[in-house]
Amino acid sequence: MNEIYLDNSSTTKPSRAVLEIVEKTMAEDWGNPSSMHKRGVDAERYLKQTAKILADILKVKDQEIVFTSGGTEANNMAILGTALANRRAGRTILTTGMEHPAVSEPVRVLEEFGFTVKIIPTDEEGRLDLTFLKENLNDDVILVSTMYVNNEIGAVVPVDEVARLVHELAPQALYHVDAIQAFGKYRIYPRREGIDLLSVSGHKLHGPKGSGFLYVSQTAKVRPIIYGGGQNGGRRSGTENVPGIAGLGVAAREAYTDFDQKIDHLYQLRDHLIEGLRRIDGVVIHGMPGREGAPQIVNAAFTGVGAEVLLHTLEDHQIYISAGSACSTHKRSGSPTLTAIHAPKEEMGSSVRFSFCETNTIEEIDRTLDVLRDVLPKLRRYQAR
Amino acid sequence: MNEIYLDNSSTTKPSRAVLEIVEKTMAEDWGNPSSMHKRGVDAERYLKQTAKILADILKVKDQEIVFTSGGTEANNMAILGTALANRRAGRTILTTGMEHPAVSEPVRVLEEFGFTVKIIPTDEEGRLDLTFLKENLNDDVILVSTMYVNNEIGAVVPVDEVARLVHELAPQALYHVDAIQAFGKYRIYPRREGIDLLSVSGHKLHGPKGSGFLYVSQTAKVRPIIYGGGQNGGRRSGTENVPGIAGLGVAAREAYTDFDQKIDHLYQLRDHLIEGLRRIDGVVIHGMPGREGAPQIVNAAFTGVGAEVLLHTLEDHQIYISAGSACSTHKRSGSPTLTAIHAPKEEMGSSVRFSFCETNTIEEIDRTLDVLRDVLPKLRRYQAR
Repeated sequence: MNEIYLDNSSTTKPSRAVLEIVEKTMAEDWGNPSSMHKRGVDAERYLKQTAKILADILKVKDQEIVFTSGGTEANNMAILGTALANRRAGRTILTTGMEHPAVSEPVRVLEEFGFTVKIIPTDEEGRLDLTFLKENLNDDVILVSTMYVNNEIGAVVPVDEVARLVHELAPQALYHVDAIQAFGKYRIYPRREGIDLLSVSGHKLHGPKGSGFLYVSQTAKVRPIIYGGGQNGGRRSGTENVPGIAGLGVAAREAYTDFDQKIDHLYQLRDHLIEGLRRIDGVVIHGMPGREGAPQIVNAAFTGVGAEVLLHTLEDHQIYISAGSACSTHKRSGSPTLTAIHAPKEEMGSSVRFSFCETNTIEEIDRTLDVLRDVLPKLRRYQAR
Repeated sequence: MNEIYLDNSSTTKPSRAVLEIVEKTMAEDWGNPSSMHKRGVDAERYLKQTAKILADILKVKDQEIVFTSGGTEANNMAILGTALANRRAGRTILTTGMEHPAVSEPVRVLEEFGFTVKIIPTDEEGRLDLTFLKENLNDDVILVSTMYVNNEIGAVVPVDEVARLVHELAPQALYHVDAIQAFGKYRIYPRREGIDLLSVSGHKLHGPKGSGFLYVSQTAKVRPIIYGGGQNGGRRSGTENVPGIAGLGVAAREAYTDFDQKIDHLYQLRDHLIEGLRRIDGVVIHGMPGREGAPQIVNAAFTGVGAEVLLHTLEDHQIYISAGSACSTHKRSGSPTLTAIHAPKEEMGSSVRFSFCETNTIEEIDRTLDVLRDVLPKLRRYQAR
C-alpha cells in the first residue's frame, strides 16, 4: 500500500532536479558569494540565475527579487519593512481576517506599536468585501496586505481589482500579496497587476525548505528587517543560502513548465474529490466553487467527527491530510479562515484540508474516498457516544 | 595543482556527513515538522536531535536553542529582539568597534530609533578596554554585545570577564556574544560563563548555508523579529529548514569530535604561517600573539601591495584567501576591525586574511609561503611605478 500524500499545501516533496542542484552546490560550488575569488564568483552565479528565472516568470527585474529564508520572512519583511519605511506617511494597515499567521502576526505587532489595523470582511466563501475596502482607503493607509490563494480553503482574492482600488484611492499605499499558495498555480505579473510586494516560499513548490523570496517593486519604499553585510543589495543581509536559492530557481522553473496541463490535472483531482465528498452524508465543503477557487485545495467539514481523529484515522491508511493548516498547529486557537468565513462552530472542529500536487492521481482520490466512506460511519458512531 | 582554500572564515566546505543528512531529509524525510501526521513527526525528530546535540555541547537546555536562517539573523534577533523587549528598562547599548556588520548594523538602526550606543575601545591587538566597560555599565544599559573571536584578525574577547562585569554592574542588562567564528573552536558554556545570548552559524563549521541558531537563556527577555505560525516555541516562526537544521547538528557534533587535536593542528598551521610571514620583508601581522589569538585566523598587511591585487594573484595559483572579511565586500568602507585597532592607513588597503580548517596542511602553508615569496617582489615593483 503506497502512501497518499494530500498535504501539499503544508509542504511538498523536493523534486529530483532540486535535490541535484542542492547536492551540486553543497559538494562542489560551496563558496561564499561575497568572496572575491573564483569560489565566490562560482557561487554568486547561482544567485543570478535564480533571480533571472524568477524575474522572467513574474516579468519583473532581477534586482526586484530579494531572497529570504522562506515565505514567513518574506511576509514579515513586507509588513514590518513597509511600516518602518513609511511610518511618517500614515499609520493605517488594511488586511483580511483570513490571512496566514505570517501576515496576521506581524500586523498584530504593528497594532501594538500604534498602527491602526482594519480588517476587510469576507463572505461565507471567502470573497472580500470590496465596498469596505473602498470606503477605508484613504491617505492614512500605507499598506494593504491580502493573500492571493487562501491556505486553508483555497479562496482566491481578485488581486488585480484590489490593486486597482488601492492605487486609485490610496496612491501612497503599498499593496502586498502573500502568494505562498498561489505562485506556481497562477500566472502572476506584479507590475502589470499593480502588486508592489509579493511573497513566495520554495518548499510549497517542490523546492528546498529555508528558501523563498520577496518581490519588491523598485519604486516601493521598504526597510530591511535583517541587517548586516549588505547582501541582496542591502535589503537582506546574511550569507546567501546558495543551495536553497539554486533549488528555488529550479523548482520555480519546473512549476511553470507544462503549466496549463498541470493546473487542469489539479482541477480534475479537486472536482473528483468534491464530487465524491458530496455523495457522502454530513460533509460541508468550504471555499469557492469550480474554477473560482484554487486548484489544489479542498477543505471539508465532516460533521460529528473531530478533525484530528479523522486525520489520524486516514494516517493509519497512509493517507496524509491536514487539520486546518499545518502552519497553525502551534496555535491552539481556532482556524482564522473558518472564523473569517463565519463557519458554524460545529464545523470548526471537524474541518480538514486535502491539498494536491501534480503527481497525485485520480486513483489516489478514489482510494481516499473509499477509506472515508468506510471509516466515517464508525467514527461518527464512536464520537456520538 | 590542487586548490588551497584558506578562506574558511568566509565559508567552509560542507562535510560528507552533512551532505548525507541533507540528502536524506530532502529525499526521504521531507515532511513539515508542524504536520500532525507521521511525515510531520518524522521531520520534527531532526529538530529535536539537533537541539539536543547543540544543548549538550553548550551544556544548556534544548528549549534554549532557537533555530535561525544563519548567524546574521541570530545576531539581529539578539540585538533587535532584546531592544524591543527591554526598551522600557533602559536605552543604552554597549558594543565594540570591531563587530561584524551583522551586529554593528542592527545596533546602528537602534541608534536611529533613539537608543544610545557606546563603543568599548580596543587596543592595537584587539583587546577591549575593560575600564571603559566598567565605567559605562549602569542601570540604563540593557544590552552588551561583543564577539567571541573577531572575524578579521582572530582577536579573542575575554567573554567570561565581560560577563562578570556586566552582571555585577548592570544586572538588568543581557550579554550577547557573537560566537560565529568561535563555536567549534572554543568550548563555550553560556550558563557557566554568564552569556545570555549566543549566535552561531552553520556554514562556518562545514554545515549548511542557511542554518544557525541563537542560544537564548530561559531567563532572557527577547522578542521575536519574525512572527507567524509560532514555531520554535513562538520565538522564530516559519516552517523549519529541516535539512539545514539536521546538517547543523551533524556539523556541530563533528566540530567537537577530536576537538583538542584539531585545535592543536590549527595552531600549528597558524604558527607556521606566521613564522614564514615574519621572514618576508614588509609584512605586518595583526591580532594577538600565540594562543591568545584564535587558532584559525591570520591577518597580515603586505606593505606596498593592494589587498585585492594580492588576492587575485594568489587566486591565479589556486590559493584562496580574503581581503578583509568576505561578508563586508558589499560595503565599500574600510575594515571596521582594522579601524578599531588603529591600524595605519597604509596597512588598511593591503591587509588580507588567511583562515584555516582542520583539513588544511603544513604543505599547503609552505606552498602559500613559496608563492608569496615569489610574487611579492614583482607586485611591489608594479605598484611602486
